[in-house]
Amino acid sequence: MKKPCVLGIPSLFSFMILLSALLPLAPALQAPSSVRQNFPLITSPTSPVYLDSSATSQKPTFVMDKMREYEMTTNSNVHRGAHRLSREATDMYEAARDKLATFINAPSRRGVIFTSGATHSLNLLAKTLGPTLEDGDEIILSVMEHHSNIVPWQMLRDFGGVDVKIKWCNLDSEGGTLDYDHLATLVTPRTKVISIVHTSNTLGCTTDTKKIASIKADHAHPDCVYVVDGCQSLPHMKVDVQDMGCDFYVASSHKMCGPTGVGLLWGREELLDSLNPFFGGGEMIDEVTIEGSTYAALPGKFEAGTPCISQAIGFGFAIDYLNSIGGMDKVHDYEKKLGSYLHSKLSAVEGVKIYGPSNPEERSALCAFSVDGIHVSDIASFLDLENVAVRAGHHCTQPLHTYLGISHTARASCYVYNDEADVDIFVEKLRETIEFFKSTGS
Amino acid sequence: MKKPCVLGIPSLFSFMILLSALLPLAPALQAPSSVRQNFPLITSPTSPVYLDSSATSQKPTFVMDKMREYEMTTNSNVHRGAHRLSREATDMYEAARDKLATFINAPSRRGVIFTSGATHSLNLLAKTLGPTLEDGDEIILSVMEHHSNIVPWQMLRDFGGVDVKIKWCNLDSEGGTLDYDHLATLVTPRTKVISIVHTSNTLGCTTDTKKIASIKADHAHPDCVYVVDGCQSLPHMKVDVQDMGCDFYVASSHKMCGPTGVGLLWGREELLDSLNPFFGGGEMIDEVTIEGSTYAALPGKFEAGTPCISQAIGFGFAIDYLNSIGGMDKVHDYEKKLGSYLHSKLSAVEGVKIYGPSNPEERSALCAFSVDGIHVSDIASFLDLENVAVRAGHHCTQPLHTYLGISHTARASCYVYNDEADVDIFVEKLRETIEFFKSTGS
Repeated sequence: MKKPCVLGIPSLFSFMILLSALLPLAPALQAPSSVRQNFPLITSPTSPVYLDSSATSQKPTFVMDKMREYEMTTNSNVHRGAHRLSREATDMYEAARDKLATFINAPSRRGVIFTSGATHSLNLLAKTLGPTLEDGDEIILSVMEHHSNIVPWQMLRDFGGVDVKIKWCNLDSEGGTLDYDHLATLVTPRTKVISIVHTSNTLGCTTDTKKIASIKADHAHPDCVYVVDGCQSLPHMKVDVQDMGCDFYVASSHKMCGPTGVGLLWGREELLDSLNPFFGGGEMIDEVTIEGSTYAALPGKFEAGTPCISQAIGFGFAIDYLNSIGGMDKVHDYEKKLGSYLHSKLSAVEGVKIYGPSNPEERSALCAFSVDGIHVSDIASFLDLENVAVRAGHHCTQPLHTYLGISHTARASCYVYNDEADVDIFVEKLRETIEFFKSTGS
Repeated sequence: MKKPCVLGIPSLFSFMILLSALLPLAPALQAPSSVRQNFPLITSPTSPVYLDSSATSQKPTFVMDKMREYEMTTNSNVHRGAHRLSREATDMYEAARDKLATFINAPSRRGVIFTSGATHSLNLLAKTLGPTLEDGDEIILSVMEHHSNIVPWQMLRDFGGVDVKIKWCNLDSEGGTLDYDHLATLVTPRTKVISIVHTSNTLGCTTDTKKIASIKADHAHPDCVYVVDGCQSLPHMKVDVQDMGCDFYVASSHKMCGPTGVGLLWGREELLDSLNPFFGGGEMIDEVTIEGSTYAALPGKFEAGTPCISQAIGFGFAIDYLNSIGGMDKVHDYEKKLGSYLHSKLSAVEGVKIYGPSNPEERSALCAFSVDGIHVSDIASFLDLENVAVRAGHHCTQPLHTYLGISHTARASCYVYNDEADVDIFVEKLRETIEFFKSTGS
């Protein structure tokens, strides 16, 4: 089944609302219809209804064009050359850092580190914070963490030469978001790390970072650091790392209109300064002798070797793109409306159970769900046959699924290029799928 | 000064030789003139004479087009989806692994790991081999290693909780390549790691891997591993990891027509199987519970999180490209001739001292050099004004420069798209630069 090119009445209506909201800020790309047109993989004749943006977003033509332009006119290694290309490539790479610093309101560009992705960022933290911990120190995670915010800490405990204890914060009574009261009971003066997701990739809830920072301040060791996994928040809302009260914040470009292969680690400068370097190699050194080496200042200290140059530049242009369509408050408002619509339509399907907050106001634009009596893999496979792309599995949150008493869920997740027509088609095809399985008695 | 579009007689002659050599194998891209035309950054009206390919190569249109096509038609996260895009993206990502496995003659695809670059690969090795070492064990490096093959081992010694000793192998008497006799005296039954560059990015020499493997077999601990830094060899010659006798081999895509942000770690499967995982996160696990995790089999074990998907796919297409222009033996033959021409022309310039082997047969197509009485930064800057791009600095080999009694060199390095006309312009402009400094008495 092909995605219809003509938009239905509900989506047209919501487009008009957004159009009026975006007009003052973004004359070039003010309306969702023009937003959609920037994404060739969404708008081609064979395009699926793409509802898998929490796994990876599609890329706008603008970002692809800008990366291509860089590679055709400027491509060079950075920081090392006396020649024009190298200077220009360096300028573009460092400009991307500036864009990111502004985007997250970092106090300075020095704390903005390019990594190969959020998984790299979290592993960097686990491996460099490790030597600052002592036997008996505590690391607090929540049961809804992504594996990338679980396994690095377990590996620190299991292979890092320090006997740390990992403690798990539960969810509230409806299984919708973090249980802050439980968190307050877990955090003690032995707590040195609190690492908790900002927006859950499965539940869709967004944690209250100020509340977590406050619990840390009240109960934890004075040196305790608060790490925020922002993979599912930075693409969807305005993030201010200074305001939110965290010490480190990580995210990935590919979930926010940018390329794979590049991610963000932001950290408070004094903390990044105090940690050992992570990767050794070119550019992260001040001087290398056969006796030993001295290390570069931030941000170079954590960017060894040839960096992900064109990817970082692409990440910067992805930020330009998100700003050009109205900025993150507008993106967030739009997705809130779309998420509510998704939640409402999906909730009305008989036999569907949606996980996460029951209040749509507390949800991002994704729904992980199960269907009575039908395996979610079958759901996803049948939807795929109808050219609707959703995901089925544990979404790299196995402990959360175990906590919820399930093994897998299906997940539909939206981004700026989705609209109510996408949701309508998805729900219609889901209903047909359920009817099919009911009729065959499967 | 613009690069002339019309090729000179010497380069035309060598083109004809190569043309005749390539014709039987590669009808589509058989001649260097058609090779050049694949590189827009080399052939535009403002293109520099680009002699900085050892830092990063330019990208052919073919690779850029194929990556663009992937992003416009297939872009999705891999390994995780029931939908068509995810399956197709996974197929392309895994096909790139197959291409790389064939390219290096790996015994199987399981030992071919995508990393974010060679620096990542070497750090992965240092950090995962670390726990297999004991106090007093020895790591052998050479004085010509790149910082990326020095600093990770120093960091292992300094921060890794194990008191290992780093021993340094010298160069032969002319400072041209490794002193194998010295290596044989350094290696002892306490030697657990020998990590030595294949082709030096500064000297241009290529080490004899079979000789090193033989010295290891004769003198080292039975568990000693031999790591080869192939950053400057894989782009330029046929590499057969089974034949060369190493245990691990690393390289980077961006030096061989592919994108930044992706690299190779090849390792013997039984060794990779025996090491602890490195990054924790999605995809590298078998099962995650709050008690602990079990890890995926190779190659997933070392590829945590969303990988550098489009970059790995681009790396695969870079290999297709190199094969399409005749394969690595042809590339190597061409570069040998071009390198000899570069060495010969540059040697004839008064006041120039070239480092590395004096025998052109033993050199790759690069020359690091100094000029009597003129700082190499001034040389590079003046050449840049003439639109000739060379590099000046320590090329991330500070210990080598110290060993040679110098602080910096300039470096001209060639790749498949360069020709004798590039060398002629470079040498002509270098002569003018030297004349200028002489005339001003600087």
